[in-house]
Amino acid sequence: MNQPLIYMDNAATSWPKPPGVIEAMEKCMREAAANPGRGSHEMAVKASRVLFEGRKALAKLFRIHNPNDIAFTLNTTHALNLALMGYLRPGDHVITSSLEHNSVRRPLEALRRRIGIEVSYVKTNALGTVDLAVLREEIRPTTKLIAVTHSSNLTGTITPLEEVGAIAKAKGVKLLVDAAQSAGVLDIDVGALGIDMLAFPGHKGLLGPQGTGGLYIHPDLELEPLMHGGTGSASESPEQPSARPDRYEAGTPNTVGIAGLTEGVKFVLKETTERIHARERALTVQLMEGLMAIPGVKLLGPGPGTERTAIVSFLMEGLDPSEASFILDRQFGIAVRSGFHCTPLGHSSEGTTETGALRASPGYFTTESEIVSLIEAVRDITAAMRGSAN
Amino acid sequence: MNQPLIYMDNAATSWPKPPGVIEAMEKCMREAAANPGRGSHEMAVKASRVLFEGRKALAKLFRIHNPNDIAFTLNTTHALNLALMGYLRPGDHVITSSLEHNSVRRPLEALRRRIGIEVSYVKTNALGTVDLAVLREEIRPTTKLIAVTHSSNLTGTITPLEEVGAIAKAKGVKLLVDAAQSAGVLDIDVGALGIDMLAFPGHKGLLGPQGTGGLYIHPDLELEPLMHGGTGSASESPEQPSARPDRYEAGTPNTVGIAGLTEGVKFVLKETTERIHARERALTVQLMEGLMAIPGVKLLGPGPGTERTAIVSFLMEGLDPSEASFILDRQFGIAVRSGFHCTPLGHSSEGTTETGALRASPGYFTTESEIVSLIEAVRDITAAMRGSAN
Repeated sequence: MNQPLIYMDNAATSWPKPPGVIEAMEKCMREAAANPGRGSHEMAVKASRVLFEGRKALAKLFRIHNPNDIAFTLNTTHALNLALMGYLRPGDHVITSSLEHNSVRRPLEALRRRIGIEVSYVKTNALGTVDLAVLREEIRPTTKLIAVTHSSNLTGTITPLEEVGAIAKAKGVKLLVDAAQSAGVLDIDVGALGIDMLAFPGHKGLLGPQGTGGLYIHPDLELEPLMHGGTGSASESPEQPSARPDRYEAGTPNTVGIAGLTEGVKFVLKETTERIHARERALTVQLMEGLMAIPGVKLLGPGPGTERTAIVSFLMEGLDPSEASFILDRQFGIAVRSGFHCTPLGHSSEGTTETGALRASPGYFTTESEIVSLIEAVRDITAAMRGSAN
Repeated sequence: MNQPLIYMDNAATSWPKPPGVIEAMEKCMREAAANPGRGSHEMAVKASRVLFEGRKALAKLFRIHNPNDIAFTLNTTHALNLALMGYLRPGDHVITSSLEHNSVRRPLEALRRRIGIEVSYVKTNALGTVDLAVLREEIRPTTKLIAVTHSSNLTGTITPLEEVGAIAKAKGVKLLVDAAQSAGVLDIDVGALGIDMLAFPGHKGLLGPQGTGGLYIHPDLELEPLMHGGTGSASESPEQPSARPDRYEAGTPNTVGIAGLTEGVKFVLKETTERIHARERALTVQLMEGLMAIPGVKLLGPGPGTERTAIVSFLMEGLDPSEASFILDRQFGIAVRSGFHCTPLGHSSEGTTETGALRASPGYFTTESEIVSLIEAVRDITAAMRGSAN
């Protein structure tokens, strides 16, 4: 078949994009694809405007006062590396969680090896979210940062950010939030939540293209840049300039990608995260309830009564997840993901370290009947398994 | 006016793109924009294929044996930072040149401050290229790297890479080449030139979109990754995997950008760098000869008899370059760049530290009559200046 009929891998990359995203990219390539901030000619000015429009839309979404406090990056991983490598110094202690993606864990482990930082991984509580009591206990005099995901990319559980933010603030510890699964879906007000750094992808809930993402950096924080280079400003200085966003955006940015991202963010602003989350939550509950009713299917994380983003990880008894995803794709035209989802510690919490899991992630454009198709496909596959086992 | 009629800023970003680039990006967004290497479903497989096709085309162009020795990056700056930060260690000595872009100078200066490396800047000879005798003399027992641009982004002069490569090889020093102005225009054979690392942009001579670039890394070199994170492989390990290209490509890549880049590279392969360079050289000589004939116009770098890439930097007597570029844009619809072009040391060689310069960079799609228009516009502006001065 030419393309999957049913796309249920939105937690990796959202698809399809809202109307206007591809068109904005095409228009940018035809009319504005010069170098922003590096020339005074009309096309360069247009390119600068593309970036500024994007920053403005994102600032509105996350209630960021100054759009220039947002630095565009290649992806969330780039944003998280900029935050962690740019902020942490030898001897610093960081608290993170067992829910984290490798894009938080691996930079922290690299810093531990490279410059000597200390890292504590807080386990999850019975609800599958960060245990706040343990988090509070872990804070030491050398603790400089709490780095947590807003929502697990394995179970969709949601971190109580207000409480985490309050703990961080009370202890004078900075808060870095990985919004890979929440940006564009859950309401994020950086001021109200006490977020000092917010890393977000452009290609997931913000409905833009791959190759985009960003990091919000509180105006009081100055990070060491991850990359040094041309900025089109203060060219005579051998050092990266301190002016934002130039300090954190060396080299030519992905103007065309940001043109698409801006349309995605505008769509989110128009629909509102409330409506998007409500819609995705209804689809998620429908999927969870359908799957739970099938004998031999085990769901990961808390039940449908607990708030989560649109992520449903599950196992089918006696069937390797990678084989199951292959069958779903080839026989049913349904795209789900199998594997470890770059979150090994999450799997050890869930007892799926050996097998990984299947992950179905509906999006705002998923329909109820597509959910039904996935449930029926899983029912058919497990029935066939039982039939062949008998 | 709606867009510049005459675009002469190809050294910053090439425009327009060859047929097929925008179409490939659109097709990718519609059909293949899932996560490469992170799922077995059809769309994820298509996305992986997009990346592999890109790597294959680039490997063919640069005569790289294994396409997986190419890591995709956000831009050349990202590639250069990966090379420099990933390779250099405390106490290492690096030789570079006064021709370098800030994307080489600033990371080196950051490393000097941060971990204590030593940096020597080799001045240019009378021809405006790296002085090989000085380069040879600068090599010390601690010299680990020679980092040079293939072509100056201020004067277009071309570094004699074969000689530099031979010197590096004879002394057991690694060679990093910044191909920002040469990739897609000059013939680059990494083996023949003894290049250990090649940093290249996707959005200049390779005729792809912004947000793309890459670094070739010799198979014998293992760098510390610049970013750590999810790779879709070896997820259980807290360390970045050693397998290429995963080691150097954490996070979701810019699949759509690379789809466009691949078409750009295929166009270069079809046209050949020989034909592209010959065409651009003819336009450059035409422009230089035209400008040289105008009283009050001063060209930077060696004369039209010396080989260079398609970069012509110049000054108009009594007129600030930024004002001149503004007039060219608004009154004549010609897009050139003014300023320091992120290469302050180059300006001190040229005696233009205070003023910066105008830079006109034709591309493969520039026409002879567009060159004539630029020459005539410069003649008109200088004549008007002289008129008003009398």
